Amino acid sequence: MSSLAKIARICGVSVGATSKALTGKPGVSEVTRQRILNVAAQQNYRPNRLVHAIQSGRSMTVGLTCNDFQDDFVGSILKGMLEVLYEASYDPIVISWDLCVHEGETVLRTFAERRVDGLLMFPPADQPTHAYLQELKSFQRPIVVVDQVFAGVEDYDFTGSQDYEGGQIATEHLIKLGHKNIANLYHLETSTGRARLDGFRSTMQKHGLIVHEQWMYNIEHYGTKEAYNHAKRLLSEKNGPTAIVAFNDWVALDVLAAARDLNLSVPNDVSVVGFANLRVASSVRPRLTTIAQNPLLIGRRAAKRLLELLDGEKADSPPHHPVTDRIPVKLIIGESTRPIA
Amino acid sequence: MSSLAKIARICGVSVGATSKALTGKPGVSEVTRQRILNVAAQQNYRPNRLVHAIQSGRSMTVGLTCNDFQDDFVGSILKGMLEVLYEASYDPIVISWDLCVHEGETVLRTFAERRVDGLLMFPPADQPTHAYLQELKSFQRPIVVVDQVFAGVEDYDFTGSQDYEGGQIATEHLIKLGHKNIANLYHLETSTGRARLDGFRSTMQKHGLIVHEQWMYNIEHYGTKEAYNHAKRLLSEKNGPTAIVAFNDWVALDVLAAARDLNLSVPNDVSVVGFANLRVASSVRPRLTTIAQNPLLIGRRAAKRLLELLDGEKADSPPHHPVTDRIPVKLIIGESTRPIA
Repeated sequence: MSSLAKIARICGVSVGATSKALTGKPGVSEVTRQRILNVAAQQNYRPNRLVHAIQSGRSMTVGLTCNDFQDDFVGSILKGMLEVLYEASYDPIVISWDLCVHEGETVLRTFAERRVDGLLMFPPADQPTHAYLQELKSFQRPIVVVDQVFAGVEDYDFTGSQDYEGGQIATEHLIKLGHKNIANLYHLETSTGRARLDGFRSTMQKHGLIVHEQWMYNIEHYGTKEAYNHAKRLLSEKNGPTAIVAFNDWVALDVLAAARDLNLSVPNDVSVVGFANLRVASSVRPRLTTIAQNPLLIGRRAAKRLLELLDGEKADSPPHHPVTDRIPVKLIIGESTRPIA
Repeated sequence: MSSLAKIARICGVSVGATSKALTGKPGVSEVTRQRILNVAAQQNYRPNRLVHAIQSGRSMTVGLTCNDFQDDFVGSILKGMLEVLYEASYDPIVISWDLCVHEGETVLRTFAERRVDGLLMFPPADQPTHAYLQELKSFQRPIVVVDQVFAGVEDYDFTGSQDYEGGQIATEHLIKLGHKNIANLYHLETSTGRARLDGFRSTMQKHGLIVHEQWMYNIEHYGTKEAYNHAKRLLSEKNGPTAIVAFNDWVALDVLAAARDLNLSVPNDVSVVGFANLRVASSVRPRLTTIAQNPLLIGRRAAKRLLELLDGEKADSPPHHPVTDRIPVKLIIGESTRPIA
């Protein structure tokens, strides 16, 4: 990469004339312009977007915080975001969430110092600190919150899934198959987990079914052996549940494993519904019955919303009302559920 | 975010004096400095790193191309990279590879225009175009290639896994269990796939075992039903293989599914070895025997190498010799392999 100054030096003209030639502005003869363009091509000159960012007040970058990149759900959201951002000539600067929590509000400060034009934010599972929320408020650029919500971000736009409805659909499916004794392995620490659980409870109530509290297990430490152990306990009970609603497909996989380790059969002994329709849901046997989300669309819509907010900013429009955009989910019937015997 | 100019205006001093006060430079009285600092704090002023980037010639950003973010292998590599980069005050600008291939060399041009200081590059499965390799050459900043290699990038530093040795270890494990009729579901399109296959062939040869070419299947379209179909064909053969080496854990999962669908048992009817030790390897039943890579360490070492190259650049040292850094793999014995009956 060569600088403007280097091109100017080689051509024996001023930096100003070089800049004019390269940006197609008047004030330089056609012969000189052509000479400058030729040298720039030879020298692999690339315009400096940092200079443009300062001059225009737009860095054409977007900050992106992410809690993890560990499966195809987050991967597809990112893919959807990147598609839309690149199409609009924005590049993302990525911060993973583990580090966000670790360094707290410092990370947001970094985004501010980099002058990102807006923020696409996967919130953390934990409630962020007061200092963090303060830093978020002082950021004063458009923010779209993605997938999860937390206390203190109600003022921002949100794009995610119909988690509550997903909890309802999963439960309706089991009830239609004749199940009444339904357990739930949920995850209260996340807003998606709370919404899915609410959907479960409201559907049980609607059908006049009892929620057996001794079969309701909160997964406190997601990603550990805890879900597997809860499943084993549930499946070891005499007159236990005939069906289990799992927080997501990974938890449903833990139920399959616990059943196999106890020589029980899914779905003959117990039915299981997952959530997310991850790659693993159709790779595993029995294939999981699951609630499919649409992560690619979540990513696209979140990024499009951010671009709208950035356009609105340019237009000097009045302060906007935050929009909540929840994308529908749908039931995928696999082999892990069956009518009650 | 407030600008330097705004702080200066509020304080009724020059932009130069404001800058001096905020950066701790002399030339402004202590009283004025304190007043400026107070106003900057009230106004949530953040220094502009874009200005600093132009002045210093260092953007403190790193370009990162990535073929996908779809599982925990790539996720852990990214995590390792981010840890090291943030520690050194670098931020990554991320480009996903799908879009890279789509837009070809344009993406690299974007990195150049953003003045990234270096590049961490997951190569694509496909051989890149001549134009792409040309753009890479003219980039003239440090580059570390990660996980996969391809023709034309031999001049760059590389960090990845001991894939060849992994192929050997997987095969040795099966041979020790008494298996002689071993099939392989491999993936020639990637350098990791080729290396693992070479390790398999060399180990079979070392032990004087015949490689039955009719049991050797190349997966041309990774991520489709192809691997599952190959597995089904292998498992349906009379006097077929007693063991299968799979390109990775996802392919091993396809073998488990094919076996289940044919009412065969893994490991009683056939043994299977995966590769990568993904989250799914220990979640599924039978747990996969697999070759564990160390993606977190790959990410850390790739980023550290890039930082070394950036330091070397500063020191104006002579052109370096590219280093190939392959991190050891190890056998994880699960439940998907057993001694031959």
